[in-house]
Amino acid sequence: MADNGRRKIILDCDPGHDDAVALMMAARHPKLELLGVTTVRGNQTLEKTTRNALNLCQYLGVDVPVCEGMGTPLVRPPAVVAGDIHGATGLDGPVFEPLTRSKDSRHAVDFIIETLLAHGDDEITLVPTGPLTNIAMAMRREPRILPKIREIVLMGGAVGLGNITPAAEFNIHCDAEAAYVVFTCGRPVVMIGLDLTHQAQCTPEIIERMARIDNRASRLFCDLMRFFSQTNREQFGLAGGPLHDPNCIAYLIDPGCMELKSMYAEIEIRSESCYGRTSCDFYNRSDRAHNARVGVTLDAARFWDIVEECIRLYG
Amino acid sequence: MADNGRRKIILDCDPGHDDAVALMMAARHPKLELLGVTTVRGNQTLEKTTRNALNLCQYLGVDVPVCEGMGTPLVRPPAVVAGDIHGATGLDGPVFEPLTRSKDSRHAVDFIIETLLAHGDDEITLVPTGPLTNIAMAMRREPRILPKIREIVLMGGAVGLGNITPAAEFNIHCDAEAAYVVFTCGRPVVMIGLDLTHQAQCTPEIIERMARIDNRASRLFCDLMRFFSQTNREQFGLAGGPLHDPNCIAYLIDPGCMELKSMYAEIEIRSESCYGRTSCDFYNRSDRAHNARVGVTLDAARFWDIVEECIRLYG
Amino acid sequence: MADNGRRKIILDCDPGHDDAVALMMAARHPKLELLGVTTVRGNQTLEKTTRNALNLCQYLGVDVPVCEGMGTPLVRPPAVVAGDIHGATGLDGPVFEPLTRSKDSRHAVDFIIETLLAHGDDEITLVPTGPLTNIAMAMRREPRILPKIREIVLMGGAVGLGNITPAAEFNIHCDAEAAYVVFTCGRPVVMIGLDLTHQAQCTPEIIERMARIDNRASRLFCDLMRFFSQTNREQFGLAGGPLHDPNCIAYLIDPGCMELKSMYAEIEIRSESCYGRTSCDFYNRSDRAHNARVGVTLDAARFWDIVEECIRLYG
Amino acid sequence: MADNGRRKIILDCDPGHDDAVALMMAARHPKLELLGVTTVRGNQTLEKTTRNALNLCQYLGVDVPVCEGMGTPLVRPPAVVAGDIHGATGLDGPVFEPLTRSKDSRHAVDFIIETLLAHGDDEITLVPTGPLTNIAMAMRREPRILPKIREIVLMGGAVGLGNITPAAEFNIHCDAEAAYVVFTCGRPVVMIGLDLTHQAQCTPEIIERMARIDNRASRLFCDLMRFFSQTNREQFGLAGGPLHDPNCIAYLIDPGCMELKSMYAEIEIRSESCYGRTSCDFYNRSDRAHNARVGVTLDAARFWDIVEECIRLYG
Repeated sequence: MADNGRRKIILDCDPGHDDAVALMMAARHPKLELLGVTTVRGNQTLEKTTRNALNLCQYLGVDVPVCEGMGTPLVRPPAVVAGDIHGATGLDGPVFEPLTRSKDSRHAVDFIIETLLAHGDDEITLVPTGPLTNIAMAMRREPRILPKIREIVLMGGAVGLGNITPAAEFNIHCDAEAAYVVFTCGRPVVMIGLDLTHQAQCTPEIIERMARIDNRASRLFCDLMRFFSQTNREQFGLAGGPLHDPNCIAYLIDPGCMELKSMYAEIEIRSESCYGRTSCDFYNRSDRAHNARVGVTLDAARFWDIVEECIRLYG
Repeated sequence: MADNGRRKIILDCDPGHDDAVALMMAARHPKLELLGVTTVRGNQTLEKTTRNALNLCQYLGVDVPVCEGMGTPLVRPPAVVAGDIHGATGLDGPVFEPLTRSKDSRHAVDFIIETLLAHGDDEITLVPTGPLTNIAMAMRREPRILPKIREIVLMGGAVGLGNITPAAEFNIHCDAEAAYVVFTCGRPVVMIGLDLTHQAQCTPEIIERMARIDNRASRLFCDLMRFFSQTNREQFGLAGGPLHDPNCIAYLIDPGCMELKSMYAEIEIRSESCYGRTSCDFYNRSDRAHNARVGVTLDAARFWDIVEECIRLYG
Repeated sequence: MADNGRRKIILDCDPGHDDAVALMMAARHPKLELLGVTTVRGNQTLEKTTRNALNLCQYLGVDVPVCEGMGTPLVRPPAVVAGDIHGATGLDGPVFEPLTRSKDSRHAVDFIIETLLAHGDDEITLVPTGPLTNIAMAMRREPRILPKIREIVLMGGAVGLGNITPAAEFNIHCDAEAAYVVFTCGRPVVMIGLDLTHQAQCTPEIIERMARIDNRASRLFCDLMRFFSQTNREQFGLAGGPLHDPNCIAYLIDPGCMELKSMYAEIEIRSESCYGRTSCDFYNRSDRAHNARVGVTLDAARFWDIVEECIRLYG
Repeated sequence: MADNGRRKIILDCDPGHDDAVALMMAARHPKLELLGVTTVRGNQTLEKTTRNALNLCQYLGVDVPVCEGMGTPLVRPPAVVAGDIHGATGLDGPVFEPLTRSKDSRHAVDFIIETLLAHGDDEITLVPTGPLTNIAMAMRREPRILPKIREIVLMGGAVGLGNITPAAEFNIHCDAEAAYVVFTCGRPVVMIGLDLTHQAQCTPEIIERMARIDNRASRLFCDLMRFFSQTNREQFGLAGGPLHDPNCIAYLIDPGCMELKSMYAEIEIRSESCYGRTSCDFYNRSDRAHNARVGVTLDAARFWDIVEECIRLYG
């Protein structure tokens, strides 16, 4: 652990409305030290998710490297992007000023490798909130990074029903082979899946509450969530957009806001119709060693307090 | 529909504690006409499930043919039986008098075919509460039975988490190829899966309530449920044994006691780790034609009233 | 073994040009006793393969029951028929007189079960030259037939390249689940696959040779082979139509005409692209128990002598 | 094409006896310009294949960078190495002098990317004779290398029977996901599989012939082949060790020495038992675009002449 007591993280994301809120939360919280933002194809094409990450950093004044990563899954041809949920830009809703920030010259995979190798064992937490392509590529390209990883706190998967297919959640489905690499890497994995994130639905009341903060971050939050909640209502019949990715940051800030259960989780990479399923041995019916702690129950009130706390940090 | 207004059913089962309650409920209710009981390997070996069915019919005075069926899945070698849940006999708990009833000379598959062919179109409802081997064999052996089937009201599958594996529910997992045949047969399927049946957990309070009826059936119910609730607590951490199969009968008696949702459901027969998953397109993300109505929400109070009503019919 | 020293066989087929020659060979040879012909969907629809079998029996004066069997695979929806190879009737080429023979009233599966149960252990050899649906159905429906089976001498599979897909041979591909049942049934299997049958290509010289016999059978042979050789040239670039199915009969008459190799063979029922592959452990790289003797090398000269011998039996 | 008319190649290998001969052939032939040797885990662990490559370069006086690459497949855990064929060192047989050469500081994936980016379109031919992990990693990490690739001439796969499993050839089986990436990359692939390489069996007569050359290279050749032929006889019953990898070099020197057939080839990454199969649509039964030219027939006499020519170049 670092001297300053702040947990060092790399946010690997594909913004994405909920990624945007995660970034907002991660950038300023005193318990966290954001070392960099890496981007990956997922909710939208790589070009768009990178542009969105830069827009977010510029708007929020986040001064860390933004490194562009993988635009193609590890093995399969690129799947569809989530335009139905995140719009044509991947971050429809807010309007940003002209972009002056530019991306770092390093590839995300190299940035991850270099940063981890420059730190001690168990020092850095990886926080992937998109497909796991960058993380898997880094692990395979340079296995010496593995002991440096304190924990991988990822948004992805589902114990129960998926969202992109009945079997699979979007992030894992985008690159199940990469997820397979991550879930078998031997380092601690916290899986924040749909079972948990659907307990964090951003209702109109929540948007109203955050709007009352009325600062730069709250305005962005509300612009994002108005769009995101509508598409989630249309596609999934939900009461509001589930704040999937911010749950990873909430866990890092206050692990007590959710109940995790340790279990064996296996990524399905063979089946066509179940491709990308996170088979979670919830009832411990097999005797396989646990490789993940999986989010089960969210203390939603506490979660929204954390979100509010993070937004208020923007003055 | 028959003259007497009673819905004609064949109960295809592998008793099994919850099968036993389903049989108890189906045998006497004035809305139902039980044409026969067929048995299949599932919760226990075929010999044991047949013996259990005969014991139940003898004890409850149910006078219909009991036909023994398939002792092996359609394709795969037989999977494990559910001794951890139903005990060594498949119906541990109650003690039965010496068995004098004997099974019908007809094979279950032949009985199903003959009975259906002897009836008109849409006249008979099949109620499989075990693996679907008998039903699939009958459909493949004699496709002319298909139009005779009014509906297949089956216990099996899960939209969310499975119980025998993370992906699969026990009945479907026992013979996923058979389930594949049934779900693609073109006739109306009602899928009563774990999502619904876990809403019918038989708590000590429920056992107490049924015990107060104090007749032949209630005594059997309580003997069964005391054993079954304990094993379910141990294996799954549930508050009480989920009355899986009786939900099929409750649906037939009072469809309004549960909410069903129409969707496309696909049986996974390829994957090793997801074998037997019922991939249910809950959010209608694909454009595939709906082939099942799937149990989503149970009005548990109404369900237990139906169970009580059925038990009281035993005087 | 029967008193008369003739090997009792049931020919289960989907004629089909090469099935037709197999039937011609099996019907009269003094070493064989043909107990019946059963039909299955394969080269063409069930209706057509049954009609073809009846036409052949009528034309050749074969007086055994012709029982119609399964028109649908065990599990999957029916695959495409082989119209590109066998024509629209499934037996294009010869013109038959009006059909007066009619099929037996028994279903092929019942005929197989009844016939086997009426005989002693190891008494009957099954000779499936089409998809294995009838055989698998019979085995699953009545497991007591298994000890009655002396040997299953089947045409199907390939150690090397398939013909309907790169991985799979047509018969196995039509119903791989049925093949899975047969290859795991525990009885001796002789697999006559493409590796062997492509060594029996019916060239114009062979047709010429058989034409010179100039009897009822030879005329049929030539009519069949002229059509069949042409389609095989077009589809596969072969020198002549491979007499797949007759190799089974040649083996029964004179096992020495081919070299078989004992090995473990596994039917692929999971993969989409390799569905129906017969994975043959030719080099014995695994330690799995051998379950098939697989045709490797044909003494083609001896094979054609047997064919000629059989044709000459028609006077 | 380069000014000097020599075809620029990178040899990506896992020596391995046949890799050793390929390296020997590639290093001095006037038609080829070897830009570098990259190593990968395959026939043995990465450490051993790299050591073997260095030993070979030192012994043969090959002065190009030797860059160590991937020690783990792209996705799956490492499979077994081929100790039964290549011995404990991966190159059993010859005894080398103490090793003074050392590997290049660059990772193979970086070397491949840098070298390709430094050249023009269609300028470099990749010659992978081991698992395709390095090549796939480079393609995914830096897609801009794709147009630089003139051709990928790889040893791997089989139209017919595999060698490590009935379905799969060793190199492809080691990392089928990597092979999937390469076969779908859109650049020209020449697949030199077992169907071809088993036509290049190094019999005692061939060893005798090469021994008579009696130079540094011929002595190495003979030491290697005596060991390799013996293990191939034991494991596969072959007359001599098949010179798999040298066929790639023979193709580059004299494409006319073999017949290639253009077809669609698909890598099986889903099935457990067919994992790593190269499904080759030999008969063009599907309508899928051809993505490989596959070696079918070798002019063995011409092949051995090329091998001899290459060995003689060592003076």
